[in-house]
Amino acid sequence: MVKVDTLAPEPSEFRGRAEALMALLREQQASAAVLFDPHRVMYYSGFAFYPTERPIAAIVTQEGEVLLFVPELEREHAASTSAAHGFRSYAEYPGDRHPMLVLVAFLAECGLRGRLAADLDGYPLVYGYQGPTLSEATGQEVCRIAAEVDHLMSIKSAYEVSLIRESMRWANLGHTLLQRYTRVGASELEVSQRAGHEATWAMRAALGSNHRANALGFFGDGVLATYRGQVGRRSSLPHATTIDARFEDGDTLVTGATVPVWGYYSELERTMFIGEPQPEQVRLFEHMINLQEIAFEQLKPGITAAEVDRTVHAYYEKEGLLPYWRHHTGHGLGSRNHEWPFLDRGNPASLEEGMVLSVEPGLYHPDCGGFRHSDTVLITADGCQRLSYYPRDIEALTIQV
Amino acid sequence: MVKVDTLAPEPSEFRGRAEALMALLREQQASAAVLFDPHRVMYYSGFAFYPTERPIAAIVTQEGEVLLFVPELEREHAASTSAAHGFRSYAEYPGDRHPMLVLVAFLAECGLRGRLAADLDGYPLVYGYQGPTLSEATGQEVCRIAAEVDHLMSIKSAYEVSLIRESMRWANLGHTLLQRYTRVGASELEVSQRAGHEATWAMRAALGSNHRANALGFFGDGVLATYRGQVGRRSSLPHATTIDARFEDGDTLVTGATVPVWGYYSELERTMFIGEPQPEQVRLFEHMINLQEIAFEQLKPGITAAEVDRTVHAYYEKEGLLPYWRHHTGHGLGSRNHEWPFLDRGNPASLEEGMVLSVEPGLYHPDCGGFRHSDTVLITADGCQRLSYYPRDIEALTIQV
Repeated sequence: MVKVDTLAPEPSEFRGRAEALMALLREQQASAAVLFDPHRVMYYSGFAFYPTERPIAAIVTQEGEVLLFVPELEREHAASTSAAHGFRSYAEYPGDRHPMLVLVAFLAECGLRGRLAADLDGYPLVYGYQGPTLSEATGQEVCRIAAEVDHLMSIKSAYEVSLIRESMRWANLGHTLLQRYTRVGASELEVSQRAGHEATWAMRAALGSNHRANALGFFGDGVLATYRGQVGRRSSLPHATTIDARFEDGDTLVTGATVPVWGYYSELERTMFIGEPQPEQVRLFEHMINLQEIAFEQLKPGITAAEVDRTVHAYYEKEGLLPYWRHHTGHGLGSRNHEWPFLDRGNPASLEEGMVLSVEPGLYHPDCGGFRHSDTVLITADGCQRLSYYPRDIEALTIQV
Repeated sequence: MVKVDTLAPEPSEFRGRAEALMALLREQQASAAVLFDPHRVMYYSGFAFYPTERPIAAIVTQEGEVLLFVPELEREHAASTSAAHGFRSYAEYPGDRHPMLVLVAFLAECGLRGRLAADLDGYPLVYGYQGPTLSEATGQEVCRIAAEVDHLMSIKSAYEVSLIRESMRWANLGHTLLQRYTRVGASELEVSQRAGHEATWAMRAALGSNHRANALGFFGDGVLATYRGQVGRRSSLPHATTIDARFEDGDTLVTGATVPVWGYYSELERTMFIGEPQPEQVRLFEHMINLQEIAFEQLKPGITAAEVDRTVHAYYEKEGLLPYWRHHTGHGLGSRNHEWPFLDRGNPASLEEGMVLSVEPGLYHPDCGGFRHSDTVLITADGCQRLSYYPRDIEALTIQV
């Protein structure tokens, strides 16, 4: 029997995840974990879906069984695409009987009567959903384990890292095309769409018919290579939104490229210039590179997120750059484009081998624009490895006019 | 002074929204409303942004003042693009001082000491955010008004309806191109990207440089014209996800097209066939049309959502179609692609003039596929108006091979 190469997860991947959660359940003396956050549902069950007002939950028992609770409209979808061992569907939301009451009855049927753990106390109030919390519906306090689960999710398996590497390959292609098509007079959206379209086509053709995005409905299924409005002076807004700006000589640009691969993202952002950068643009660019280097040098198991961010922050202070500071050093990423741990002075957690983080200290100057590279790094046994390999130097990132 | 035509909101639009909320605050004897849900923030402040783990809130006082609470990274963005009257930024999340504590101090500085109303009791736990609830941070119970605010948001102003109409125009173009490019052997994603790309270009060029998507980061900024995996037998999964299927003769297809216009969406979905449909396909298509017509005929102010859904459901029963039922009749939409009110037997609310709803009872047959048109309707003084005008008949929706 020949096995064909695929990026699809093996059953052992889900067993490993369930086992780590089972240990947590034993510690907490809980009979099962009920997970409502869509990314946590996917993490334990492999079910990728469009979250709506209809609650969906994954239940992981102390014996490692994974059960999915879904609306009728997702029944066949969950049964045919997920790795869960059992399923229960409810008719509809709000329906004749509120889904949360159906869930509680289902938990009882499964014999899960003792103390329950949950990531959230009920389904989050999104898209107009209203309903009782899980503790209201069960009449007993639930043990909240969101922080513990996010810690488990922050340590990536070799398989998860392979998906993030694969994502980076196609983000790199998308970014290469984005840079190639950017020229004076073109518009942001037209360049972004062309680059994303071509990179997506190439990725799909390269990965073959077995490929899945599993993006949970966020940011689309293809390669995203974008400026997100960070063009010219507007690049000084760290989270600008698209206005379909036209490129001009002298613009500072901040990019972003990523793509979901079996539910996992990478992060790649670069500062670019149209035409030879002016002295102040060069100065801020070089400071931004220094800030990133300070972070890279510190990253290793045992150091705290707060220490990394404080050391980076000290450089802003020393160099008189605080007026241009707008955000912390970086964040975790994986199946979510932002997740715990945050490289922030307020986060005392220690870094651990297997964590994947963005490193992106930025400088934002109202006239010269924004200066931010974001690189994805993996914490290794004794330091870190940069998973993003797109050029970082000013020459490579200057678009000649 | 000549005013140039624009789809941008007038200040009077936000005044109207604030006034309705002020009346609610007086009723509830609350000094201010704190709104954490990103769509509700945009509704009252006009601020469109990418939601992350960094809390953002809009505060509407009993005097109608709208204040925005944002992270430092959004300060200039909020000040330069929103309609809020005042701003307060906090450094970072989690930061030296938790943002929720900064928010509570800000509320006190503003003299908002009495009873507070809020849509959610604190920032929702997304992207790894953790923090105290608003009631924990203030030490007093907050008055929850999510359901009341969603009711206010469900009654669309003339301006909001104009944006939904504008969205429908470009969704219609995107859908036309999707149908035109669909042919045996092409892949789902390639057709979807080409249609979306061309429709987006045309929309941007037609609406001019003043156009804004204001999509809050969901589903992208351009025209989405897609199959979302509902191709052939897989069309029987109501919320399938893309697998980049190739089109084959005999396929039943379910489409979807929309685009954000200044933050507002329309909804347009069609059932199509490749090649002449077989008798069972025709039979289920015709039943689906009948189900929609039953809903259209009932929609008017005063009827309850539950009545509409029950009458539609009675047709499933009478015609032996219950095995193919998977979801209720429809849902509200506006700045969110799904929102209250749900056309569901469990929703006793009466419909009101100005509500905008999808009408999309579906049939899902494991072999023949999925049958669902989704039309957007506006509840008028004495009935309803269909805002989607794409052809609905089987001849127009059959792609010849």
